[in-house]
Amino acid sequence: MPAQTMTNTKIVLASRPEGAPCDDNFRLEQEPISTPEPGSGQMLLETIYLSLDPYMRGRMSAAKSYAEPVAIGGVMEGGTLCRVLAIDPEARCRHKVGDEVLAYTGWQSHALVKVDDPSVVALHRPEHLPLSYYLGVMGMPGMTAYTGLLLIGEPKAGETVVVAAASGAVGAVVGQIAKIKGCRVVGIAGGDRKCDYVVNELGFDVCIDHRQSPQDLAAELHAACPDGIDVYFENVGGHVFEAVFPLLSNFARIPVCGLIAHYNDTFATGEMSGDDCGRGDFTPILMRAILTKRLRFQGFIVGDFADQRENFVNDVAAWIKEGKIKYREDIVKGLENAPRAFQGLLKGQNFGKLLVEI
Amino acid sequence: MPAQTMTNTKIVLASRPEGAPCDDNFRLEQEPISTPEPGSGQMLLETIYLSLDPYMRGRMSAAKSYAEPVAIGGVMEGGTLCRVLAIDPEARCRHKVGDEVLAYTGWQSHALVKVDDPSVVALHRPEHLPLSYYLGVMGMPGMTAYTGLLLIGEPKAGETVVVAAASGAVGAVVGQIAKIKGCRVVGIAGGDRKCDYVVNELGFDVCIDHRQSPQDLAAELHAACPDGIDVYFENVGGHVFEAVFPLLSNFARIPVCGLIAHYNDTFATGEMSGDDCGRGDFTPILMRAILTKRLRFQGFIVGDFADQRENFVNDVAAWIKEGKIKYREDIVKGLENAPRAFQGLLKGQNFGKLLVEI
Repeated sequence: MPAQTMTNTKIVLASRPEGAPCDDNFRLEQEPISTPEPGSGQMLLETIYLSLDPYMRGRMSAAKSYAEPVAIGGVMEGGTLCRVLAIDPEARCRHKVGDEVLAYTGWQSHALVKVDDPSVVALHRPEHLPLSYYLGVMGMPGMTAYTGLLLIGEPKAGETVVVAAASGAVGAVVGQIAKIKGCRVVGIAGGDRKCDYVVNELGFDVCIDHRQSPQDLAAELHAACPDGIDVYFENVGGHVFEAVFPLLSNFARIPVCGLIAHYNDTFATGEMSGDDCGRGDFTPILMRAILTKRLRFQGFIVGDFADQRENFVNDVAAWIKEGKIKYREDIVKGLENAPRAFQGLLKGQNFGKLLVEI
Repeated sequence: MPAQTMTNTKIVLASRPEGAPCDDNFRLEQEPISTPEPGSGQMLLETIYLSLDPYMRGRMSAAKSYAEPVAIGGVMEGGTLCRVLAIDPEARCRHKVGDEVLAYTGWQSHALVKVDDPSVVALHRPEHLPLSYYLGVMGMPGMTAYTGLLLIGEPKAGETVVVAAASGAVGAVVGQIAKIKGCRVVGIAGGDRKCDYVVNELGFDVCIDHRQSPQDLAAELHAACPDGIDVYFENVGGHVFEAVFPLLSNFARIPVCGLIAHYNDTFATGEMSGDDCGRGDFTPILMRAILTKRLRFQGFIVGDFADQRENFVNDVAAWIKEGKIKYREDIVKGLENAPRAFQGLLKGQNFGKLLVEI
């Protein structure tokens, strides 16, 4: 097949946001892209679904984190589900044209990658679950929930587990696994519709609306957790954490998975800075609670637990089939709508795992 | 033996300190105390040594902690090494007159306790180490160091371990065990004399004087930890923690054992309060570091690891005999000098494990 030229549509980082991202931080670009030439060692992927996730806000900032930031003008990063369109005919490749693969090609319609790129992984679907699930409950967010809750949270039957962003891609799975493990599960979500879904569809014991005054949130959470909180799966921070904090029981475990309430804070640079608060004033209260209540705070990212993949896939696929894990998606059509959808995600406007169908 | 009356000398909590304890917070009292009468089920203990430890500052405050506060007018709490003076002749007792026992009878010369009081433990000394060691390196502070470092810190050969209060009862043992485990060990202590002792006697690789400007401390610590900090044994807080914090490596472990720099803070009540700092301002920086560096902060008290006692006694006794653990005591004579000695302890004026010989 002679090299063929088509158009790649992509969203690049136009500028770094100060505070919440806005339209101006993104730019849609188009460029010609060719099928791989013989000897190039490349293959061409076509994106089917792009996953939108809160961590991407971190990549838009220059601050130090566990991964490098996206460069200005660079394609926005993200996990994708792709189809192999073409392969360098001279290359040896474990994929073949037409294969569905998981990749990390970002916010674009096509990508040329090396045939042996380790981030491109063949998709096996013996469970016959929908394709899109592999970017959600059967993918990174599901595995984040599974590993963080079970390996750091270590929930025991009868304990109380609190999950913020309870209707989200990670929180929904955390809470349902905690129910499977015999815990009392209290969700926190934004608005009546989400709270109703969390209790009546996902089977949490209670769900509390965080869109109320901090005082009311604290009082309602206290009433919902009469024996305190044994596991708090932290993916929010902010006033939700403040409501949770005084209720933590002795020996509580806090897997720190995300802090979406702070992703737009400009001072959250990972370096301690005294500018926002008198030096030395902000840690003693938290540290004293860690000491006197013997709390365990532990941060993680899903890549830290790669050896758990097989357990995760087997367990969660089985739980979905048994009806013990339910799953909801929020699918937006068209790459051009990704920036707005992502801005909405950071405000909690999505309802279910957010994906873009390209 | 007929009941015999003698005098018990005790130090009681006269008032709760605001900030640093002062002489007025303590009162020396004397009262008659009798040998146990037949049928009373009691035994009389005579204190040989009283251990003075930083945690006692917490008991002087009314704030919630892992233990109840001392009541106003109550005897100051503390671990003791006692001799059994007399036992109710009608009682069955696992101790006998003349036995040396570990107890928790507090700041007093004598105490009447139940013959089966579980906090009174027979002292076995097959290792023939000095009696006073059982309130220090072979007692609570030693076991605190051993369990916190090994079970929470999990030091691996080649890693960098930082220990504050490095010449203190706990810190000295932490650092020496970390050396035994093959780590690079950096101590932090107050003043040249202590730093010299920590390096030349205890064998730490480096010791840094915290009595310098925060900027100089941070710079010196940075130079001493070119590969970052893998384990920080936290028993201080304050500006030492601030110097340590930016140097923590990915996956660092922070056993939180004490916060002596904050024990006199009146706002450290264990409840989150927005009064000292804008609400929500003080946790995001710490929490973001926990997330992005995947840190583990875990509080503990020695009682959480009671099942480790045998391992602790065997290992540490062997290390002392092999000369791998050295130990220094600071023994004050006379109970009446305990309040001043304790006030000095909180200021770092002691040099070695602080004991009162009664």
